[in-house]
Amino acid sequence: MADKKLVEQITSMDEDFAQWYTDIVKKAELADYSGVRGCMVIRPYGYAIWENIQKNLDAIFKKTGHENVCMPMFIPESLLQKEKDHVEGFAPEVAWVTHGGQEELAERLCVRPTSETLFCDHYSNVIQSYRDLPKLYNQWVSVVRWEKTSRPFLRSVEFLWQEGHTAHATAEEAQEETLRMLNVYADFCRDYLAIPVVMGQKTDKERFAGAKATYTIESLMHDGKALQSGTSHNFGDGFAKAFNIQYSNKDNKLEYVHQTSWGMSTRIIGAIIMVHGDDNGLILPPNIAPVQVVIVPVAMHKPGVLDRANALKEELENAGLRVKIDASDKMPGWKFAEYEMKGVPVRIEIGPRDIENNQCMSARRDNGEKAAISLDGVADSVKALLADIHNNMLAKATKLRDEKTYTATNFDEFTSIAENKPGFIKAMWCGDTECEEAIKDKTAVTSRCIPFEQEHIADTCVHCGKKATKMVYWGKAY
Amino acid sequence: MADKKLVEQITSMDEDFAQWYTDIVKKAELADYSGVRGCMVIRPYGYAIWENIQKNLDAIFKKTGHENVCMPMFIPESLLQKEKDHVEGFAPEVAWVTHGGQEELAERLCVRPTSETLFCDHYSNVIQSYRDLPKLYNQWVSVVRWEKTSRPFLRSVEFLWQEGHTAHATAEEAQEETLRMLNVYADFCRDYLAIPVVMGQKTDKERFAGAKATYTIESLMHDGKALQSGTSHNFGDGFAKAFNIQYSNKDNKLEYVHQTSWGMSTRIIGAIIMVHGDDNGLILPPNIAPVQVVIVPVAMHKPGVLDRANALKEELENAGLRVKIDASDKMPGWKFAEYEMKGVPVRIEIGPRDIENNQCMSARRDNGEKAAISLDGVADSVKALLADIHNNMLAKATKLRDEKTYTATNFDEFTSIAENKPGFIKAMWCGDTECEEAIKDKTAVTSRCIPFEQEHIADTCVHCGKKATKMVYWGKAY
Repeated sequence: MADKKLVEQITSMDEDFAQWYTDIVKKAELADYSGVRGCMVIRPYGYAIWENIQKNLDAIFKKTGHENVCMPMFIPESLLQKEKDHVEGFAPEVAWVTHGGQEELAERLCVRPTSETLFCDHYSNVIQSYRDLPKLYNQWVSVVRWEKTSRPFLRSVEFLWQEGHTAHATAEEAQEETLRMLNVYADFCRDYLAIPVVMGQKTDKERFAGAKATYTIESLMHDGKALQSGTSHNFGDGFAKAFNIQYSNKDNKLEYVHQTSWGMSTRIIGAIIMVHGDDNGLILPPNIAPVQVVIVPVAMHKPGVLDRANALKEELENAGLRVKIDASDKMPGWKFAEYEMKGVPVRIEIGPRDIENNQCMSARRDNGEKAAISLDGVADSVKALLADIHNNMLAKATKLRDEKTYTATNFDEFTSIAENKPGFIKAMWCGDTECEEAIKDKTAVTSRCIPFEQEHIADTCVHCGKKATKMVYWGKAY
Repeated sequence: MADKKLVEQITSMDEDFAQWYTDIVKKAELADYSGVRGCMVIRPYGYAIWENIQKNLDAIFKKTGHENVCMPMFIPESLLQKEKDHVEGFAPEVAWVTHGGQEELAERLCVRPTSETLFCDHYSNVIQSYRDLPKLYNQWVSVVRWEKTSRPFLRSVEFLWQEGHTAHATAEEAQEETLRMLNVYADFCRDYLAIPVVMGQKTDKERFAGAKATYTIESLMHDGKALQSGTSHNFGDGFAKAFNIQYSNKDNKLEYVHQTSWGMSTRIIGAIIMVHGDDNGLILPPNIAPVQVVIVPVAMHKPGVLDRANALKEELENAGLRVKIDASDKMPGWKFAEYEMKGVPVRIEIGPRDIENNQCMSARRDNGEKAAISLDGVADSVKALLADIHNNMLAKATKLRDEKTYTATNFDEFTSIAENKPGFIKAMWCGDTECEEAIKDKTAVTSRCIPFEQEHIADTCVHCGKKATKMVYWGKAY
């Protein structure tokens, strides 16, 4: 049904996955390049996806007791340097402001690459007593990291994200919070984005600069590459000591706080594209789709058609759905292709004959299935359809991930999979960073995480043959 | 009733208005200073006010057909320079990024002080035909202007705002949009913030850099100073010519688009403080108050009190109100002072005797009035109370503004008012920029706007005595 002119403009996924991705970003009008190297313009359709992500995630943050704040976008160089590991990790990739107006600054400022140092500085001012704890703060801002290469959403000099920063009285509370928010991310991916993830801990090598432990959710793209989709860090009291964040406990003794941070960014839009999309364009999960249902009136000039279509729109909207009606003079085939490209979950056609039969025709974006739907109780039917689409997308993505998850018991198998079968590789590891680096050097594969769900695949490390301590998910990553 | 310890920490408004303002910002926990000169930390309570402003204003923007986007935070120097007046206005007050990572940049980037140039650059890419118009875009971001002096919310190096940027086929549509959004701001101030404004046009001298016409809403603070609370600009086709933004019209001829921009910022939180506050702290308009009702249980240890208070909270929340219950072990007097400081519109006390009488006691923050409220239909009663508080706050602020609005028919009167009676001065003006500058040099008073509602006060200019062309609102401004 889809108009060839539009569809032919997308490169096929199998032919050139990177070009397919770029084509979708452009043709679905998600983002555009800007005049600034590595910075993108997020267009209305792309931003509406982010707004839906933000709205739902923010509601969960608030339900779990978090409050939003806003820190400055600049960090003085001396403040960035206060925590040794942190500055080493970030200083090489920040943008530096050296002049304000006509004057050269006495101390240069970096544009925040992440805001641990700013939150710590503030916490050292506002935390005095155990009554001030916990502090459960979050902010929705953009951050800047001076990347050499860039791709819209996946890797860019500036990107949008939320960063949670919390301070707790005890190490146990901080660890609970770290895992609570990792679970929030995993549940959010499953329930709102229809993306299954693998949850686990990062190795020391992949740990966040300054963290005691970093946890991650990893998702698998259509091309078999992994994408780190959200991280949650336990800082212990390392930052508290560097920034002197102390509170007096109930016995009036000074103690250091224990901190966490956690973040999810516009990268996740890249994951949505690459987990669900196909050669006709985007396929959006219903829960965050800017338009859940597009109504295309057929034979619009016939009396009553447009009125009935508008009444249908109103009925669906009153049921809480996000609906668009396209009554433009474009050809139906053109419209169909356009909304396929944009990944609208359900298309509804309604024409004179449908109205006669008290029905409309639905077409699902996820599997192309068409069906007649009675106009009686249509809102409930469409809601059920959207729920089914969500479930089907999640099942499909889970199947894809499982099919692309391989097991290697020795390094020959590992190398062969790495070369021929893009996906996750489950393999045992000795726990040595040197061994991990050797694997990367030889295969371009990195450790994605030490999953919470451990399996015993072999007794020895897949690379060095020494005693294995952990099963690790490995993969090539974005 | 209020606890003296808390209240005594605020400087009285009459004694030192600037210190009173700073005290409120700090004691009500709206914002804190950061380690970066001129940049503030917006704390949870302050940010929650901004979130309520954002949520309501954004809904109005969407209802009037606007879409949100996100442009980069950086502007290359060459892009900033494309429109001559614009760069002259902003270049002296921007922050310059000169280094990315370890490298010096070939071209320096400024951190956006406003985003006309970025929107124009994007519009020149995405606008081709009349079918692409109008473009009605908005973004919620922070901007940076290298101010020498700073005060939280009122003037800071970085501040949060929204900036609308639109492109239209005709000059008429652009002018309609400019005034539509000015009206949106004025209505929003009245209906959500209980702030009355004067609407009008800026003089040429006060016009936005690059605009053909700038319109403004001006509000009057408790100390008689004016605050520009929102602006809307008509750019004509000036930017379109500088950035070559052309579309082919229905006759397939190329034409330049006509553009507007409009913005409201976190400055408006400064206006809320200074229009409504008193010597006991903040007084928040109910429609944007993070907490509309605080419930303070009395004699909490008595059986049933806390349960009844919680049931009341739930009932009010189910009616859509934002409610907090304070069941902490602080003394009631302390709690009362704290929520007065934080400007919570309604305090409800409920104790054993109230429960016996099937009632609770309400106290209004705006006028201190107390009353018993029946627990039957309590949600409707509280809603009516909040509506009355809003109306009373608006009436009070309007009365204050009117009382502090003076008329001058000659320059002696003008000078005398400027020296002795802080407020708006209505006076006739010849239309000459030189005359306007002379008035400023002599009295430190600037033109606030040429109001839409013109009055004929005299035939001649209040300063030079030449024929008057306009009645102008003058005042000292933040």
